[in-house]
Amino acid sequence: MSENRNIRIDLEYDGTDFAGWQIQPGCRSVEGTLKDALERLLGHPVTVHGSGRTDAGVHAENQVANFLTDRPIPADAIPVALNAILPPDVAVFRAGEVPEKWSARRDATEREYRYTLHRRRERSALAGRWAWHFPYPLDDAAMRDAIAHFVGRHNFDAFRSSQCDAEHAVRTMKAAWIDGEGDWLHFHFRAHAYLRHQVRIMVGTLLEVGRGRIRPDDIAAILASGDRTRAGNTVPAQGLTLVRVRYESRMMNDE
Amino acid sequence: MSENRNIRIDLEYDGTDFAGWQIQPGCRSVEGTLKDALERLLGHPVTVHGSGRTDAGVHAENQVANFLTDRPIPADAIPVALNAILPPDVAVFRAGEVPEKWSARRDATEREYRYTLHRRRERSALAGRWAWHFPYPLDDAAMRDAIAHFVGRHNFDAFRSSQCDAEHAVRTMKAAWIDGEGDWLHFHFRAHAYLRHQVRIMVGTLLEVGRGRIRPDDIAAILASGDRTRAGNTVPAQGLTLVRVRYESRMMNDE
Repeated sequence: MSENRNIRIDLEYDGTDFAGWQIQPGCRSVEGTLKDALERLLGHPVTVHGSGRTDAGVHAENQVANFLTDRPIPADAIPVALNAILPPDVAVFRAGEVPEKWSARRDATEREYRYTLHRRRERSALAGRWAWHFPYPLDDAAMRDAIAHFVGRHNFDAFRSSQCDAEHAVRTMKAAWIDGEGDWLHFHFRAHAYLRHQVRIMVGTLLEVGRGRIRPDDIAAILASGDRTRAGNTVPAQGLTLVRVRYESRMMNDE
Repeated sequence: MSENRNIRIDLEYDGTDFAGWQIQPGCRSVEGTLKDALERLLGHPVTVHGSGRTDAGVHAENQVANFLTDRPIPADAIPVALNAILPPDVAVFRAGEVPEKWSARRDATEREYRYTLHRRRERSALAGRWAWHFPYPLDDAAMRDAIAHFVGRHNFDAFRSSQCDAEHAVRTMKAAWIDGEGDWLHFHFRAHAYLRHQVRIMVGTLLEVGRGRIRPDDIAAILASGDRTRAGNTVPAQGLTLVRVRYESRMMNDE
């Protein structure tokens, strides 16, 4: 029996036409699309382990995954070979050999997400896939005050979907900030892990602050309440992008 | 009979799924799509006059057009009203009343185009619509030397499609330059008007320079020869974007 090699791949995808990362029967998933392409390339069954799931419509600039193979294909040749098989909305841009026990999911220390609003009164024909059109006035200063309340270790029960199946809702937000220019506003979040819809509910709540319906300091009370009905709506998936995943020890030149 | 108002509209489009600007039987054109939406909005036949045609697959960040109507709809209300009818890949972001004789085509003094290359070895899943993937080494300095030869008044016979029906090929290139960062390279051109496929043939020729097959100084000789076979290939439409159209007198706040 040949030795198993553990290969890390870094990839990007346009989530518009995917039912999300995870394989689901009868749906077009990123994981399933990658698995099919790898199995065609390598000629044996492959299990793809992603750093985490992304929901339907969510994009990735740098998702990370790993898989095992006993084939001798040089890691460096994998991206171009795989991209020739993958559809246009997924592309692998880096691959490298990692230690046998390395896991894209378990070894990840941080996932960074960005949520983008397009604030022009008129919708965009060019950015409609990557941003959510939000043509209403917003108090940016109030939102900047509010987002700071998310940083730190909190119980995020008020900020998770009713379908979230995590055992508990305590998560540590390492950083959260807002930037942007012109018609663009970006919400950024860095955490080890997130609850289902957490980023989209946090952004929805920040927009309530921006609209003057919730005061910035209320974020602390909403967190303390654990009451989902006090937080804002879940904003649409199309504005959300997984920007990068960080790892403790650099297995590859990952930045 | 009511008075005719002349309305200027500024619009953007993703050219991927259009057969170009111009109405053609049986094809999905930007002009035809706009005309249909305007006729639904205004309830009378409309002729749309664009600043110029763009080919199939070419994008626009700021195309300009004008049309006549006797309807009293405030110009300021037109973009949002029209965008509700237009498909996602076209959007009008500005409209304003202009003098009766004003023409988006005749009064334009300059059209600016950008051609974008994505230079990473691995293709992109996120930029495939807006850029052409060109994963080969290029001598950027040689291309910068070469592009300067296009500036000025020249006969561009060597740089037009065999299907170009312009009477003569003398055009004045006001400016042409290259910039970019990381995996992106942009070719910029500013001229009053262009020949059919001129920008895409100029870029194809600059890539020959970048690959070392044509010397930068050869551009002058190719221009002088008028020989299409000495210039480079026509690069694909997907990397080309109409960036803006300029007008002598500012009818509107157009920048």
